[in-house]
Amino acid sequence: MPKLEFWYEFASTYSYLTVVRIEAAARNSGVDIDWCPFLLGPIFKAQGWETSPFNLYPAKGRYMVRDIERVAASRGIEFHMPEAFPANGLNAARLALAGKSAGWCAPFTRAVFEAQFVRGDDIAHPSILARILASLGIDTLDAIASATTAENKDTLRQQTALARERGIFGAPSFITEDGELFWGDDRLEQALAWAGRQPVPKRTAR
Amino acid sequence: MPKLEFWYEFASTYSYLTVVRIEAAARNSGVDIDWCPFLLGPIFKAQGWETSPFNLYPAKGRYMVRDIERVAASRGIEFHMPEAFPANGLNAARLALAGKSAGWCAPFTRAVFEAQFVRGDDIAHPSILARILASLGIDTLDAIASATTAENKDTLRQQTALARERGIFGAPSFITEDGELFWGDDRLEQALAWAGRQPVPKRTAR
Repeated sequence: MPKLEFWYEFASTYSYLTVVRIEAAARNSGVDIDWCPFLLGPIFKAQGWETSPFNLYPAKGRYMVRDIERVAASRGIEFHMPEAFPANGLNAARLALAGKSAGWCAPFTRAVFEAQFVRGDDIAHPSILARILASLGIDTLDAIASATTAENKDTLRQQTALARERGIFGAPSFITEDGELFWGDDRLEQALAWAGRQPVPKRTAR
Repeated sequence: MPKLEFWYEFASTYSYLTVVRIEAAARNSGVDIDWCPFLLGPIFKAQGWETSPFNLYPAKGRYMVRDIERVAASRGIEFHMPEAFPANGLNAARLALAGKSAGWCAPFTRAVFEAQFVRGDDIAHPSILARILASLGIDTLDAIASATTAENKDTLRQQTALARERGIFGAPSFITEDGELFWGDDRLEQALAWAGRQPVPKRTAR
């Protein structure tokens, strides 16, 4: 089955829109999703941003909220901005990465996004994350231990560096096996279609 | 017929994608398009950007080109980045605005975008714009005279100020009669659908 890498940041509002629909969409397209949590903060910092562009550019921030409200309404899902935005997604990202080998990355990711953007929970809090792990029947202490090893912390740093090397500058992003990068929830269908088809020439012929 | 304001900047690559399809899409949706040329430069400057974000943030710039190549290929249209980017769209915007009252704003706009993004012309040059006017059967001297009156120059400044007041921060943008703002070529369908569902004022029977 063709693979599609799905790169997401836990504080990202548009990543939420994708997280709640990518599994069904990928199944329909016959594509396998590789869940790739990473941190946008260091990438933003490298281009001179100390916080989310939605905070730095208020008109863009106001528009984003309204845009997502409309999209969420049209898809029949809930969306509310959390009080603290952007959330610190470091603990959640470390856990999600640890959950990849253990097989619970996807359900954990979805539960964290829903906690944040449906119920308004601050996902920076270990107690919120512990409750989510427990609700999914995951051994909480074991998960936290795996997430906080030096090796797992380093893997997250490497993932974030890799994201930047691959040209990622925002989330959600998708990368196909032949290296095509797609950015934004509204590019999910294109990314799945590309992933599912045979290799095509890299440049459009004139 | 319900109206939709279409705000565009002549240097904007994503505006090109919209310009070449908005007339047919609007016709299919039974929506009337109000063509609103404006300048993004002053809006970018107000948020601290001296050039296009696609130049300021190279990863985003490289992605934009590839994204538009893919979208253009899927729609069967041509797209090539002009050598000078972003183009200075001041003369084109003044002309387009002058063309609104004269009735040639839409065909002129489309011809300018195609000159820039299909043939690679630098649309800052008056000779390029004069050739486009002539090819559309528009009286070139008359058009340039109307475009360069103090009144028309001031109208463009007012349009740009109005865009900012209305919350516009990029192009293309769309505003419905009830004030909903949509941003980006990939929001055109949503904007048209929203515009089309507005309550139509009742006509008094005579």
